[in-house]
Amino acid sequence: MAAEQLVIVGGDATGMAAASQARRLRKPDELAITAFERSHFASYSACGIPYWVGGEVDGPDALIARTPKEHRARDIDLRMRHEVTELDLERGRVRTRELDNGGRESWTGFDKLVLATGARPRRPGLPGIDAPGVHGVQTLDDGRALLDSLDAAPGRRAVVVGAGYIGVEMAEALIRRDYEVTVLEQSAQPMSTLDPDMGALVHEAMCAMGIETVRGATVTGVLTDGDGRARAVTTEDAEYPADVVVLGLGVRPETTLAAAAGLPLGESGGLLTDLGMRVRGQEHIWAGGDCVEVLDLVSGQLRHIALGTHANKHGQVIGANVGGGYATFPGVVGTAVSKVCDLEIARTGLLERQAHAVGLRFVTVTVEATNRAGYYPGARPMHVKMLAERRTGRLLGVQIVGREGAGKRVDVAAVALTAGMTVEQMTALDLGYAPPFSPVWDPVLVAARKATAAVRDAGA
Amino acid sequence: MAAEQLVIVGGDATGMAAASQARRLRKPDELAITAFERSHFASYSACGIPYWVGGEVDGPDALIARTPKEHRARDIDLRMRHEVTELDLERGRVRTRELDNGGRESWTGFDKLVLATGARPRRPGLPGIDAPGVHGVQTLDDGRALLDSLDAAPGRRAVVVGAGYIGVEMAEALIRRDYEVTVLEQSAQPMSTLDPDMGALVHEAMCAMGIETVRGATVTGVLTDGDGRARAVTTEDAEYPADVVVLGLGVRPETTLAAAAGLPLGESGGLLTDLGMRVRGQEHIWAGGDCVEVLDLVSGQLRHIALGTHANKHGQVIGANVGGGYATFPGVVGTAVSKVCDLEIARTGLLERQAHAVGLRFVTVTVEATNRAGYYPGARPMHVKMLAERRTGRLLGVQIVGREGAGKRVDVAAVALTAGMTVEQMTALDLGYAPPFSPVWDPVLVAARKATAAVRDAGA
Repeated sequence: MAAEQLVIVGGDATGMAAASQARRLRKPDELAITAFERSHFASYSACGIPYWVGGEVDGPDALIARTPKEHRARDIDLRMRHEVTELDLERGRVRTRELDNGGRESWTGFDKLVLATGARPRRPGLPGIDAPGVHGVQTLDDGRALLDSLDAAPGRRAVVVGAGYIGVEMAEALIRRDYEVTVLEQSAQPMSTLDPDMGALVHEAMCAMGIETVRGATVTGVLTDGDGRARAVTTEDAEYPADVVVLGLGVRPETTLAAAAGLPLGESGGLLTDLGMRVRGQEHIWAGGDCVEVLDLVSGQLRHIALGTHANKHGQVIGANVGGGYATFPGVVGTAVSKVCDLEIARTGLLERQAHAVGLRFVTVTVEATNRAGYYPGARPMHVKMLAERRTGRLLGVQIVGREGAGKRVDVAAVALTAGMTVEQMTALDLGYAPPFSPVWDPVLVAARKATAAVRDAGA
Repeated sequence: MAAEQLVIVGGDATGMAAASQARRLRKPDELAITAFERSHFASYSACGIPYWVGGEVDGPDALIARTPKEHRARDIDLRMRHEVTELDLERGRVRTRELDNGGRESWTGFDKLVLATGARPRRPGLPGIDAPGVHGVQTLDDGRALLDSLDAAPGRRAVVVGAGYIGVEMAEALIRRDYEVTVLEQSAQPMSTLDPDMGALVHEAMCAMGIETVRGATVTGVLTDGDGRARAVTTEDAEYPADVVVLGLGVRPETTLAAAAGLPLGESGGLLTDLGMRVRGQEHIWAGGDCVEVLDLVSGQLRHIALGTHANKHGQVIGANVGGGYATFPGVVGTAVSKVCDLEIARTGLLERQAHAVGLRFVTVTVEATNRAGYYPGARPMHVKMLAERRTGRLLGVQIVGREGAGKRVDVAAVALTAGMTVEQMTALDLGYAPPFSPVWDPVLVAARKATAAVRDAGA
């Protein structure tokens, strides 16, 4: 019997994790695996780009988990610079174009198909937005282009548009390269993935780091110089000179092909799947990573969350199921962690506005504590905000802003959310304690105690 | 109506946390609170002593959470240097002796009694063990005595007996003071709170730090010089010169008074309580901290675990219940974290021998991963060992040995244990990911994946 044909569209985290896992389970004579990747790189850590740009990491090689050659040695036919341009589901084939070979087109048949097409950066349709010197940072190709642009920049002023995770990480990267950095954020505070009161702490810290952070700034366009290169970013109120512009406005699911093929998309435009990451209503098509919507276990809603850690998990699950095994991806609780210089920023669960939006009644508390015992060298303040459902006391979310050791503390809350714990149950958690690691009451426990009291005081 | 009389025996973490919490709930005209403390210090962090001795913390003041004066200002009658010498339960009174006042004795009546008598260091009955220059490190008084002894020491050789948490922390402290340090450990590996394979990693690291670590060493006595001061520690095989000797052999519950009064003790000698920390069979007596046994939620057994974080929680629970509120202490999962120089050591749940002892069948896996993304500066290896129950796949325990950021990762497992998660459920945990904080698969997730496969392979 001929081998079954597995075709994978997209050769980054999800696609290649799926390929590797499927290959572990099924030999080449049972399953032939072909993966198409349109960029110059596969299997890489896009999350590492800010650190490559900042000079902390030797890129791009260090960011590549496994080279195309290594994949091919494992009997995965990875074809680089091949763009898939059409899905023909009826005939079970995909059309590809070779980007480095005169655009040669061909069709490849599949028995099973994995869509791992990722996301594309939001790029508002503003004058000058496509000028040289304006950069997204979604792919290694983007990172390479930005580094070239920095080398060519006439001066050392950078404007970052958007103060979300990518925006603040890029601000740090550019500070490290001795750029004067201005971050323009449309919201009332940077990090709109946090509540505004916690975002304000980030704003304060960024200003103290010498990063000019402009809030409530609506970007209206990019001005260019005589050569057509970006020279300034304009907002409704002002003009910010820029030798380089970085866009950190988040991403959208890249599902153009899927939409054209009539596959089911959710409100955010991401593909809809079942728990095994199979596209809804499809027997032989799976999808994962930045191009799908995932179930938020706290709100019960579908959301689009582009994160490498989910993408890798999806790839594993898809590979197991495609390979004849069994695995599921139950959903997320909305955990994210980042840093800007020495400030650590983390969240899990719901923000206030998210909890409101799904009809939850809740209490919030915020505590200031220290990462280590107060007397231990290096003890630094950290803020923990906690949301709990009224009446039930169920944990709904945690946000943390602090210094060393603050960010990963969010994991405790992520597990508690997954387990459906109440904040009162959390007060008894047996967390690791020793003076170099934590005060005798870990900051998360301090917040849980205060939230427990708030739930009690709030009544129903 | 006269105020109710609350008497507290022991003025450290449990006793004073109970006092403070009870005072928050009840005014002085409703509840009079008297606490007796035999040492020179109250409300302090004994866990901080190694860092005081090592010169990282200015002691003892920095280690004191709240001074006697501050307690008194909150209407808590804290009497220092008062030793309680007898509990007369029939007549509801305790006998005290004033240690600085000619040993004056008196009786104090109580309506409610809290026993927070702590623990005492194990001190084997060996020749020379009580000689000057041999020190326990249980109280601030002990810390002070050790520092005086170090000042008076004729040379700079230290022997630490016992390579548990206190032993390794004191080894680090003495290294910081430029002592040549030898650690003598009776077990096959240091840190017998870990499985031997993980303890071996600690041994290796300690040797690399220049800490001579002798395994399988049975101490037979302490040799003294002409003045009677310790000059060497002898084992069955050798003699180790020592200008100072530190005992880190663990502690036993200090329940002499409770035993004499006929209160119920468990196998370890710790007091037995209910979930509200009330002594079993007693209506008006509570106990907590290092003098009680606690329920191990993983094994279902009672254990004695002396840890400041439990002591503080017990105090809160006792204070709430004594003050007419409601709180419980459900139990522990056996979490502990420590470090020796830059090596972080953590555990939660059961070791192999503990799981065997309670009749559990299990699989074990160990993984080596990095604390951060492999390419990110400061990425260092860490080892994670995981135990899971056969057939059910329930998580039973985790041990971690690694560098920066390794230790507190045990908290994820502590919450998962509390929630009764399986290792397969853990593989989907939404833990914080960004390159400075974690590889895209957090080491705990890597271990969970491997454990999931091991459970599947092991069958029933």
